[in-house]
Formats: sequence, C-alpha cells, structure tokens
Amino acid sequence: MTPSLVANGGVAASEAVAAPVTGRVAAVYSEVQSSRIDHALPLPSVLTKPFKVVDGPASSAAGNPDEIAKLFPNVFGQPSALLVPSDSDSALPQQKLKIGVVLSGGQAPGGHNVISGIFDYLQDRAKGSTLYGFRGGPAGIMKNKYIELNSEYIYPYRNQGGFDMICSGRDKIETPEQFKQAEETAVKLDLDGLVVIGGDDSNTNACLLAENFRGKNLKTRVIGCPKTIDGDLKCKEVPTSFGFDTACKIYAEMIGNVMIDARSTGKYYHFVRLMGRAASHITLECALQTHPNITIIGEEVQNLIAELNEILAHDVVDEGGLWKNKLTSQSLQLFDFLPEAIQEQLMLERDPHGNVQVAKIETEKMLIQMVETDLEKRRQEGSYNGNSKDSLTFSGMKEDVVYQPTLILPTAMHWVMLLEHSFTVEKRGDIIGVSRLGICAAPVEEWTVGGTALTSLMDVERRHGKFKPVIKKAMVELEVSSDLAYQVHPSRKFASLRKDWAINNRYISPGPIQFHGPASNALSHTLLLELGVQA
Amino acid sequence: MTPSLVANGGVAASEAVAAPVTGRVAAVYSEVQSSRIDHALPLPSVLTKPFKVVDGPASSAAGNPDEIAKLFPNVFGQPSALLVPSDSDSALPQQKLKIGVVLSGGQAPGGHNVISGIFDYLQDRAKGSTLYGFRGGPAGIMKNKYIELNSEYIYPYRNQGGFDMICSGRDKIETPEQFKQAEETAVKLDLDGLVVIGGDDSNTNACLLAENFRGKNLKTRVIGCPKTIDGDLKCKEVPTSFGFDTACKIYAEMIGNVMIDARSTGKYYHFVRLMGRAASHITLECALQTHPNITIIGEEVQNLIAELNEILAHDVVDEGGLWKNKLTSQSLQLFDFLPEAIQEQLMLERDPHGNVQVAKIETEKMLIQMVETDLEKRRQEGSYNGNSKDSLTFSGMKEDVVYQPTLILPTAMHWVMLLEHSFTVEKRGDIIGVSRLGICAAPVEEWTVGGTALTSLMDVERRHGKFKPVIKKAMVELEVSSDLAYQVHPSRKFASLRKDWAINNRYISPGPIQFHGPASNALSHTLLLELGVQA
Repeated sequence: MTPSLVANGGVAASEAVAAPVTGRVAAVYSEVQSSRIDHALPLPSVLTKPFKVVDGPASSAAGNPDEIAKLFPNVFGQPSALLVPSDSDSALPQQKLKIGVVLSGGQAPGGHNVISGIFDYLQDRAKGSTLYGFRGGPAGIMKNKYIELNSEYIYPYRNQGGFDMICSGRDKIETPEQFKQAEETAVKLDLDGLVVIGGDDSNTNACLLAENFRGKNLKTRVIGCPKTIDGDLKCKEVPTSFGFDTACKIYAEMIGNVMIDARSTGKYYHFVRLMGRAASHITLECALQTHPNITIIGEEVQNLIAELNEILAHDVVDEGGLWKNKLTSQSLQLFDFLPEAIQEQLMLERDPHGNVQVAKIETEKMLIQMVETDLEKRRQEGSYNGNSKDSLTFSGMKEDVVYQPTLILPTAMHWVMLLEHSFTVEKRGDIIGVSRLGICAAPVEEWTVGGTALTSLMDVERRHGKFKPVIKKAMVELEVSSDLAYQVHPSRKFASLRKDWAINNRYISPGPIQFHGPASNALSHTLLLELGVQA
Repeated sequence: MTPSLVANGGVAASEAVAAPVTGRVAAVYSEVQSSRIDHALPLPSVLTKPFKVVDGPASSAAGNPDEIAKLFPNVFGQPSALLVPSDSDSALPQQKLKIGVVLSGGQAPGGHNVISGIFDYLQDRAKGSTLYGFRGGPAGIMKNKYIELNSEYIYPYRNQGGFDMICSGRDKIETPEQFKQAEETAVKLDLDGLVVIGGDDSNTNACLLAENFRGKNLKTRVIGCPKTIDGDLKCKEVPTSFGFDTACKIYAEMIGNVMIDARSTGKYYHFVRLMGRAASHITLECALQTHPNITIIGEEVQNLIAELNEILAHDVVDEGGLWKNKLTSQSLQLFDFLPEAIQEQLMLERDPHGNVQVAKIETEKMLIQMVETDLEKRRQEGSYNGNSKDSLTFSGMKEDVVYQPTLILPTAMHWVMLLEHSFTVEKRGDIIGVSRLGICAAPVEEWTVGGTALTSLMDVERRHGKFKPVIKKAMVELEVSSDLAYQVHPSRKFASLRKDWAINNRYISPGPIQFHGPASNALSHTLLLELGVQA
C-alpha cells in the first residue's frame, strides 16, 4: 500500500459548504510561519507622514471610450491620483470610517496582507474605524455575511499564505436583485468604502458595483485591488498585480531543478508548460530567471499566425521564399527559428474557418513528438545511439502542482506592495483605485503611491448583441506601441539572449524562495525591465 | 498556443549519450546559488583537530550472518570505528593518497558536497593527494573514464544541487569481466581508496567490489556513502542518509500549501501520495512536519494484513468481534480506525494466493472513491449539499514533480553531514565505512563521527537457488524491537497525535526551504526523535 496523506481542511463533509472554517485559533505554526508573523513591513515613506492626494488628468478607457462612458456614466473619466507629502494631516479628513473588504476569485499569495494593510491604515490614520470582512467572496456581500476584523483576529494571518482569513468565492454580483442585495448590505452596515480584492472579472464587477452605488447616491465608494498570478492585469499606472511575483519564483525554482537534472543526466529533454491563460507573462519572467534552451511565447505565435493568415489569403507563397518579406521582422525570426515540420503545419493546415489547427494542439506534447521523431531519425542514421523514448520526460507542472504558486507564503515583494492599497479607502474623490508602485526598483521607502480609475483599464466586448465591459488583458508586448512602450523591454531583452540560450549552457537555478539574506528582496525581472532597470 | 519552456541539458541530441556535459564553466548563477558557493561549512570539532580511529567490537550482519560471512570472507566482521581526539596528527599516517570517487544511481541533494568534502579533507590532511572523479557512474570505473578533480573544477559545484560535477549512472559491476575491468582501473590509477556514493544496491555493489579487491590483494579500499531520499538506508550507527532531509522538506512545503488551500476553500479534500518505495519514512516525516488529517503508513497496513492472514487461516471470525483480540494493539487500533468498506475488503477479498488484493490498489484512488461514495450518500440523506465530484482533488505529486526533491539545492543538514565521510578514506583498517552523526541534535561541532562495516547492514535473499547479499531496507519501526528501539520513537509520537490531527485543525505549513535565518538549521523530526530528542 502506498503511503498517503489526506488533508480536508479540518472540516467534516457536512459542514464544508455550510460553514467555511475561518480563524486560526487552534493553528500550530512552523518555524518559518512564526518568524514571519511579527515581521515589520517597510512602507513607502509617503505613507508614513502626512500626505494629500493630487489628481492627474481625467482618464479614458483601454478601448472604445465612448461605449465605456455610456456604460459607466457616473464613474467614467475619474482622474488618476498620486499621493504627495503634505504639511499636515488636515489634508485628508480624520474621521471614523466603516469599510468592507472581500476576497473574490482564486487564491494568490498576499491576500491576507492586503487586508492587514487596510486594517493597519485605519488604525493608524482613522482611529475608531471599523473593518468588515465579507465571508466567502461576493456572496458574503449579497447575504450580508461578515465578521468585524480586529487585531486579535487578523494577527495569525499576517504575512501568511492562503485566503482563509475570510475565504474567497466566485459569485458575481450582476443581476438587478443581486445589486439590490449589495446595496442593502452597504446601507445596513453604513459602509463608507468597499475594497474588492480580485482579478479582471472581479474588478469589472467592482466597477459595475461602483457605478450602481453612485447611481443610487450611496456614499459607499468601491476600490479594486489587482490580484492575479498571471500578471495580465496591469497598465502603466499599475505595473503589476499581487501574486505574480511569488508564482514566478516558485515556478522558476522548479524549472531550475529540472535544468539541474538535464545537466546531470545529460540525456533528458524537459518540456514545461506554465500557467498564464492567454498571456505569457509568467513564461517570459521564468525564462528571464532561468534561461531555458527554447521558450515559446504564445503572443509571438499568435502574431505569426495572424500574419500568415493575411499572406495566405492575399498573396502567392513562392518557393523561393520571397513571400517571407511580408512578415514583420519578429515573426520572420520566429518562423525561421521553428523546425521545418512546424513551419509546414503553419503554412498548410487550416480548419474550415481558416484557422491554424496547430494552435489547438497542446504545445508540449507536439514538441515531445517532434523531438522523438527527430531522435529516431538520427538513431537510424547512426548519429544518435540512445533510446529516443527514454530520453524524453514531460514536466507538465499541471493538476494540483500548478496551483502550488497560488498557495505559498507571499514573497517580501507583496508584503510591501499591498500596503499601498490601504490609502485608497480615504480617497473620497476617486471611487475606484488601484495602486501603483512607481519606480519600485528603488528602495521601498522611495516608491510612489497612487491609483487610477478602473474604467481606464476597460474595453468592451460584443456579446449577444450588447456591449459588455471587460478589463482588457495585458498581453506580452512584442513591438513598440505608443502607450505601452515600457512593456516592450522584457521581450527585447529576451530576444537579444534567446539564441545564446538555445545552444549554450546558461541555465540558472533560482532555488527556493528566501525570506532572509541573499535573494530575499529580488524583484521580478520583467517588472524591473518595464520600469527601465536592467535585471 | 500554451507558453512552454524546453531544457535539454544544453547538449545537442547526438552528443547526449556519447559525451555527458560536465563542468559549469559557462554557468551563470542565481543570487541564491552564488550566495551558497562560498558558504563555510561547520565541521564536527573532532575533524578540525588531530584525531585517531578507535575500533569498536567486531560487527555481524543484519540477518543470516553465517551466509554473509561466507559471501564476504575477506571483509566480514570489520569493527565499527569512532573518531576521537588525539594528541598529535601522528595518530594517522600523513601520506599522499590517490582516491577515486563515483556517483551511483539516482540523484539526491548533497552529492556535490560529499565530493567537495573528500577533496577538502585530502587537501587539508594529506597534501599532495589526488582525487579522481569517475564519470557517469560505475561505468566510468570499468571504462577508466575519469577526471582529476582540482579546486577550480570543484568550486562552482560547492553547495549546489545536481550530480553534474561527474554525473551518475546505473550500471553495476557484477560479472567477472566487470570486476576485472574495475581491478585494472584501480591498479592503473594506483588507487588507495574508492568512495562509492549510492543507495542500497550501490553499497551492496561496493561491498562486493571491496571483497573482490581484498581477495586479489589490491591495496584499494572501498568506502560506501549512503545516498537515498527514501530514508531506508540506515542503522543505529548510520542514523540517516543524505537526500532524505531535503526531500522531506520540499514535500512538506507542498503539503503545507495544499493544506492552506483546504483551509481557504473549506470544501476540498486533497490526497497526497509520496515517494518511499516500500518504506514510509518520508510519509512519517512529512506527517510530523505538517499534521495532515489522515496518514497511512504502509508498514502498519502490511502488519495488519499479515496478522489478518494468520487469523483467517487458523481462527474463526466471530460476528461479535472476539477474533479482534488476536490482533496486536497497533493493528487493532488501525483496523478500528479504517472505514467499514476497507475493513470488509481486508477481511474478505483475497487473490488465489490468499493475498489481500486491496494492497495492489493505488491507495489514493481508493480513498478518493470512498470519500466520493460517502459524500454522495450524505448528499442523498440531505446532510451535505455540495457536489461530491467537485469537492475532491487529487494531489498526486507524481511524474516529474516527485523528482523535484532529488534535484533541489541541499539543505544545511547535508552540507554538514557529508563532510564526515571525508575521514573514511584514511581508515586503513576498515575498508567499508559509512559515517554516523552521533547526537546530531547537538550543535554540529559536537557531533560524533564514525563508520560501520557495510556487511553489518547486509542480509541475504534467496534468488534462483542462490543466496544474494542485499542491504536490509530499514522500514518504519512500529513496535519496540531489541536492536532498533531508537527507531520506534517517531511512530510512537505520531500514534499519540493522529487522533487529534484527524478532527482538529492542526495543519502546519513549513514553507520553502530557508538557507538563512529561522528554520535554516531545522533537522528532520524523525531523526531527532530517533536520537531521543523531542521534535
């Protein structure tokens, strides 16, 4: 019998849904957990002294501003905001506030620190305030299920992973009845503010809720806080979301480990698929941290496919290859980099709608098959004497392990970053804000702190004949675009190194996340590059 | 297209087997890797001053000593050895030595440190000595493929994971021709000693090689060094092998992470299968580190099955349950702890040979199915309102991820432990030695250092009508046995806590392995308990 462990959250099955377990009253902590609980977090200096909020210019939208303006008549156009030192605290009103906070969607390391940060801010800047934690996600708002958070309750969760302080949920507030329920809660608890900690869907929902509250003349202001490990919820004013940094570090550790294996055995090929939905930020970051031989950035392939589709539809594909001149230099480089078999698939195979079917193949399985075929060919030619099947391992990092990064203790990066969010609850002028790190390559103390209107991240999608607001996902930027030029630097750095990595031994093994000593303050390479700093 | 990474060891396919890549000349290091490279390792104080070797009583074997004595006439009965301070270095001869070292079998974190330790010892205690690293495992000995290890070559591997300094291999030296090849290499290189770093098979092979060299009157002495992450290669004098500590820590981190998920979502059951072959040391250690609700120790189930087989063969199984009195208290406790369905399977189902077929079922799949069935039953009774299928996740930690622990940077535990092995090369009296940690709960400086005869770990198995020597695997000890009483303590501690863990929230999340600050010096719970220290 294989030795096994079972963990079920410490709850009997019948209780599991009815009463999610919160509170770590009986919790026993490991040495690492204990050592983190009293860790004092550095703060940007602007938050440690009297400050005031300076408005930037009015904001627009990420796309279709006219439609966004129509969908959000009350909140569209809010200016971005920046915190600057002030002569006295009188710059912001000193009053007791009632604030609600909710965790929405999947877990990401750092959620507990966002809540602790809001709590500490209220304790420090608005004594006598109340912080309500809605339990189990947005459903907690609709059902008015909450707990009043106090020092004792929050304490065991400080700097710890997980979302179990108040638990999360995936419900949405979208029907008129649901909006009504949320209004009732806001009124009943006399909420001055509601902080929604979530990803793109949750922040879209937060924006709708804000519009709704404004429309009903409620005093409750809604603040969004960007949470996603995928890294695709960001804009110039919000350079990153919490979760991304830790996720990339734990993936990079695992990739570094299989690299050591590749080097030690000298005969295995490892294929690693990473999370990230449509965007490849995690892959790009991990590549910059570990230097694999080949990295496939989804956005590059999609660009290439789009260009090939255009060419195949309108041009003659000549044998001499002159048609290739119509590709952008980036796509041409990628095309030439690909093995012949993939080139052929990209040129020939289309489904009835004209799409490349290869896009639907699981990349790593296709790659494994191609390498197998090639090794077998070499074996028959006598240039390879191994057994091709034995030489290939697939490191999928899927199933539960793929979620390991969402659960781990947050890195120092997050402890700090999240505290900024605390300020937003008092920004009476802006109802929707997400923070920004400013030049975060500088010491934490020098970070700038600000927010931007959530509508400025929005675009619309046409669904069932109606415009639906959506937060435009930030993809890996491959070419210089007017607004997002800062995002191009990581790709450019990667492009300048990939050929060298392909043929030389440049593997880097980042090792496990460290909370003390060397590497404990390391920031994401992509973030640093986007901010103009060499990683 | 899903973003992916590929790592192939930096070698073209045609080179992969012919010329394993060694050397990290072009390697770029992460901050964590760099910070470890110059890390000074603490040494047991006996190794820092003049010492001499004191012999213990003559050794026997782990089983069938008469057969072992026949199989190893030249090396059987070697005494154990202990290093003690001496007035002067003259206690041990100061002469130049020629030593070979080989990595054998799968990877375990710490291998590079064993080699560095031997090298440093020679530099320090026997100036002018030569250390040969045989490449690619035992095949390197047979083919006389080696490199001469020097400071520059070893430097980049210090305190780093992997086996790529000289690479490993799974070949065995077992036929007369192969023994002849090994002899030729030993003679050609004029070897005074050969250190075989490997698991139970490799150490059995080392013992056969030693017997062979002695029989041929070669001067070459063979030293075994215990490497296995499974923790089943140990005895009283050799409390642990390298690899186990790091492996358990990385598993415990992952288990702690899914525990946080269980607590955060309040609705998932996680089932985790761990490595360990027949022995459950890893599972027991991880349980003591993390406190899961249920832990299944393979040895307990095997004991219970053996007792049930006896009872079913010779006794009447009465409905009143009086038959249960024939079970040992341990087995009775386990039997009563098991769900009814498993109890029935254990009582009823036997294959044609009378064995319990349930033992062949993958435990975690069986458990998932049982929980699914039970939740479905509760749902129909109205005491559970979730969807049972959705509430179950299987955290297999298998495929490549299961090997992550073999590849990670070694913990501090190993940096230290492995240095002890260096002394053995000069123990002219004992040809086979493995080190011991002594009371390793004490500071490293106070650790005792010694070795024991490899034949003392040996037993025989009857194969094809002949006795084959094998190292007796150390299983998790459940009952007090005369010789291995020290091994019982971890099980006893576990038994005293498991009921509490089953129903209360006692999860512990150890977090990632730390090299600095809190938890960086934590030792295995099982090891501490075996040494009589409360973990």
